[in-house]
Amino acid sequence: MTKEKEYTPDWFEGKLPQGSMRALFKWHDPDAFKHPNKGFYALIRDTFELKDADFKQPDLCLEKAPDNLPVSLDPKHIKKFTHICGQENVMTDAYNRIRTSYGAGMIDALRLREGIIENIIDAVICPQDANQIEQIISYCDQNRIPITVYGGGSTVTRGFEAPLGGICIDMSKHMVQVLDFDEKNQTVTVQPGIYGPALENVLNHAPEHFGAADRYTCGHFPQSFEHSSVGGWVVTRGAGQNSTYYGKIEDLVISQEYVTPIGLFRTQDHPRAATGPDFDQIMIGSEGSFGILTAVTLRVFKHRPQNTKRFSYLFKSWQEAVHAYREIMQGEFGYPSVFRLSDPEETDAAMRIYHIHDTFADTLLRKIGYHPMQRCLLLGTADGDKDFTHLVKKKIHHICRQKNGLPLTAFGVTKRWEHSRFTDAYMREDLNDFGIVIDTLECAVTWEQLHKVHTQMRAFVKQRPKTICMTHISHAYPQGANLYFIFIIRYAGINDYLDLQYGILDAIQTSGAAMSHHHGIGKQTAPWLEGQIGSEWMGLIRILKQHFDPHNIMNPGGTLGLDMDPVQRAKRWGFIRE
Amino acid sequence: MTKEKEYTPDWFEGKLPQGSMRALFKWHDPDAFKHPNKGFYALIRDTFELKDADFKQPDLCLEKAPDNLPVSLDPKHIKKFTHICGQENVMTDAYNRIRTSYGAGMIDALRLREGIIENIIDAVICPQDANQIEQIISYCDQNRIPITVYGGGSTVTRGFEAPLGGICIDMSKHMVQVLDFDEKNQTVTVQPGIYGPALENVLNHAPEHFGAADRYTCGHFPQSFEHSSVGGWVVTRGAGQNSTYYGKIEDLVISQEYVTPIGLFRTQDHPRAATGPDFDQIMIGSEGSFGILTAVTLRVFKHRPQNTKRFSYLFKSWQEAVHAYREIMQGEFGYPSVFRLSDPEETDAAMRIYHIHDTFADTLLRKIGYHPMQRCLLLGTADGDKDFTHLVKKKIHHICRQKNGLPLTAFGVTKRWEHSRFTDAYMREDLNDFGIVIDTLECAVTWEQLHKVHTQMRAFVKQRPKTICMTHISHAYPQGANLYFIFIIRYAGINDYLDLQYGILDAIQTSGAAMSHHHGIGKQTAPWLEGQIGSEWMGLIRILKQHFDPHNIMNPGGTLGLDMDPVQRAKRWGFIRE
Repeated sequence: MTKEKEYTPDWFEGKLPQGSMRALFKWHDPDAFKHPNKGFYALIRDTFELKDADFKQPDLCLEKAPDNLPVSLDPKHIKKFTHICGQENVMTDAYNRIRTSYGAGMIDALRLREGIIENIIDAVICPQDANQIEQIISYCDQNRIPITVYGGGSTVTRGFEAPLGGICIDMSKHMVQVLDFDEKNQTVTVQPGIYGPALENVLNHAPEHFGAADRYTCGHFPQSFEHSSVGGWVVTRGAGQNSTYYGKIEDLVISQEYVTPIGLFRTQDHPRAATGPDFDQIMIGSEGSFGILTAVTLRVFKHRPQNTKRFSYLFKSWQEAVHAYREIMQGEFGYPSVFRLSDPEETDAAMRIYHIHDTFADTLLRKIGYHPMQRCLLLGTADGDKDFTHLVKKKIHHICRQKNGLPLTAFGVTKRWEHSRFTDAYMREDLNDFGIVIDTLECAVTWEQLHKVHTQMRAFVKQRPKTICMTHISHAYPQGANLYFIFIIRYAGINDYLDLQYGILDAIQTSGAAMSHHHGIGKQTAPWLEGQIGSEWMGLIRILKQHFDPHNIMNPGGTLGLDMDPVQRAKRWGFIRE
Repeated sequence: MTKEKEYTPDWFEGKLPQGSMRALFKWHDPDAFKHPNKGFYALIRDTFELKDADFKQPDLCLEKAPDNLPVSLDPKHIKKFTHICGQENVMTDAYNRIRTSYGAGMIDALRLREGIIENIIDAVICPQDANQIEQIISYCDQNRIPITVYGGGSTVTRGFEAPLGGICIDMSKHMVQVLDFDEKNQTVTVQPGIYGPALENVLNHAPEHFGAADRYTCGHFPQSFEHSSVGGWVVTRGAGQNSTYYGKIEDLVISQEYVTPIGLFRTQDHPRAATGPDFDQIMIGSEGSFGILTAVTLRVFKHRPQNTKRFSYLFKSWQEAVHAYREIMQGEFGYPSVFRLSDPEETDAAMRIYHIHDTFADTLLRKIGYHPMQRCLLLGTADGDKDFTHLVKKKIHHICRQKNGLPLTAFGVTKRWEHSRFTDAYMREDLNDFGIVIDTLECAVTWEQLHKVHTQMRAFVKQRPKTICMTHISHAYPQGANLYFIFIIRYAGINDYLDLQYGILDAIQTSGAAMSHHHGIGKQTAPWLEGQIGSEWMGLIRILKQHFDPHNIMNPGGTLGLDMDPVQRAKRWGFIRE
């Protein structure tokens, strides 16, 4: 057995053939790789009762993607877009059309692996400014041409899938400028196509770029940080991994500008007002179905990484750990920044992955009451003023110790997590290559709901033999938190995968949670939206849609549950399930 | 001169004749009084170049209010409401109808003093539960009967004035129950008619009421705290004086239930979600024009007054003081709770009122560079965990000292302010009795706008001779704050008063501020709303209105600028200016 463990699969690190299927579903950077370590590999192999021999023939999908997809859009329209944006900013080749119609969800990769090309837009347009976007929308509205918007391509909810075809507005080429930086107001205004690293780079170097007195950060670091756009963060109501301190995107947005089929909408910079409804909070989360975000002003914070304090604790039970976690959020001494609590199954997986499982240290842990499938790992950071982070860490320590939390801070657990915080997703291809599917779903809960949702979700998933189901809480508030589920199954066809996914979404809904905390709804979760928010609010979304987009050209085909037909609804948006 | 200063006007403290005009405009508690002290009296007398002799004949308005106002509502409707709510819960007497149609604004008191009775509802109904409210709304929708809602009557924006008549739903009689208290979620759910003190009393005594482990507070203490309702706080987007720490009402609301003409709308308790637009933020600030709030769940906080820290500083200049104030809000060590900075004119008035002006202490202050009409007073508190409040106070001290802030903490300035935080408005009647008008207007600004708005506002007001104009900042964010103006003039007729008020609103608008930070829009500021938010968003409010209230029965007649006719618009809602 020990010998067998030494085997390492020949994880793919080759050059991606241009225009290949793999190039389409490969996670972000074509030259970046991260492979399962030995602990993770052993966990997978053992869970699914596989042998090393099962990890010898990867399915790499290096074949060419189809390049002969017909364009159903009238050539006169293409000509018009070329006239508006220039020849070099209009693409109709199949590769780019697939690239901007498929997201980063497991379903996207699985479909590409199966050679399923569906719901593709007809042309990709890269406007150079908001004025061109206005012209495009106006023309599309007159000619009833559907429009989707592409930023970083990191949707995991089939956000910009295009079942009705049309055009995709790719913001990532030109709409990436920093429009304004205001140190007195502590705000930055950007075009929405800018990606996380570019934004942070500018803010971190505010003295050099703007003659600012200090360095700044936006504080928004989703797992997709390196290849997601500010616009995507805003229109999906996203959250960064540090949102517990910095706030979710709806807490960071100060003002916005949208181009809609009925005109331009701008909100104002006052941080709070009593002048009727909050328009920002109507547009945030509109997922491209009301209009296109063309500028957004965000809060910024002082960039002082030297002040960051790290901490980690091991708890004896999920109950006790959640209790400590909640007490910290209700302690009124300030919030931590990163703040992640793993449930027993995720904690045990981490123990294996970090080679602690079955070691002398593990024996010791068990002896003092920290048992497998009971113990829970908490890790996090505190950001802000130096004395503040010191206080937050001290207070957290006090509460954790009261709840039998074993301090692991000295072992650098949080640093290790930080090291891989944006890169773990690179391992997905490796697993997929050998028929292992790894996916995530997430939801929002009150404290009262948390245990029920977790229990019901696990009860559903565990009906299925040999399924890994890891859960963590990673975004917290005094009144509740999120629950984030990672499940790993052996691949048995797309319909089998969708059965599980839909079943989990059903379980989440039945248990009373909100269908998403920060991934958004897209076309994937759309059939569950009305069930959660109620038909009265669904009616209001329809009214808003009708107002902003009377001809239903903005991201049509099911976004936010808006134009699903009864068959789609019944199928829970099963494009594939015919 | 010294002798003359000893004169004290014979401020009224008599019993209010039942049904009198004075009973209608008297601030809240009929038996409570607070009179201008000698310093304040001298300030008024000297500013307006009056003599003690001018303060001998008060105009007390003790005469009976009219009791013969015709009810224009068909008796069959009254019968129906009686059938729904019971005889004892339907009132058509003039006094109650005036009481629930006039708010607590200066314009309300002035009109009553002038004997102007206008825009009165026809009947006051006190429903016993949400079900009765549903029946009433449904009936009114069918019969096109306008509905206003009365909570605490503290509107200063003509919020529930009824130019189209109809009925007023008075929530303050029965709709005052605490429906749920959830210590794990740290939330309380109440009916909206409950007043501040009743809510705080229940929360402060949570162990006794609910067997809770701790005592709690809602943290929402508007100046009108003692006679305003939770529902009013919510539908106007109000703020408490401690909002810088606890949050504005839109930060405190977790979920809501509204009865509208098209049905019941409930939101959910998840503190954050990514499931489309935020419906709570559409309904908060709807000012009774979409439907009636029937239940609201609010965040609560641990009630630990023993942890509260107080501080106060005097600065040499407004510029320096605002700079310190902003740095504190951007310091990332936590926010203060009460946080009030007075401009030079307000500071000097405070010096007079607290008898420091022209004393030995004042001479000393001037000697070390704290000069009249330059110096600025900052006062505040820190709330929360004990170590946290200690840290916040320490950090504030550090920043204030850097900006030449002179610590006054030892002199109990904040305690003195706390003592009168809810009662200063009782002085209004005293001043009014002798022809002096005192009123307030407020707005929201970014830091970049603050000085411009303050300067332009003062420039406008100071064109008018002998006008006191005091300004403070009392609600702050990292990206901006509010500006709160108190102006005192000699009464010269309602139109003269309105000229000033409208001029100030114009000046606020021109300078780029938001038309309100926490008073709301009502019918008073309605003509300025579209100018601020823009016609695109005004169009959206109209769409929302049309959706929730297709027959325009909910608080009609100009609320949120919804149904002003062009003449009204041009007059800036001058009911009186014919």
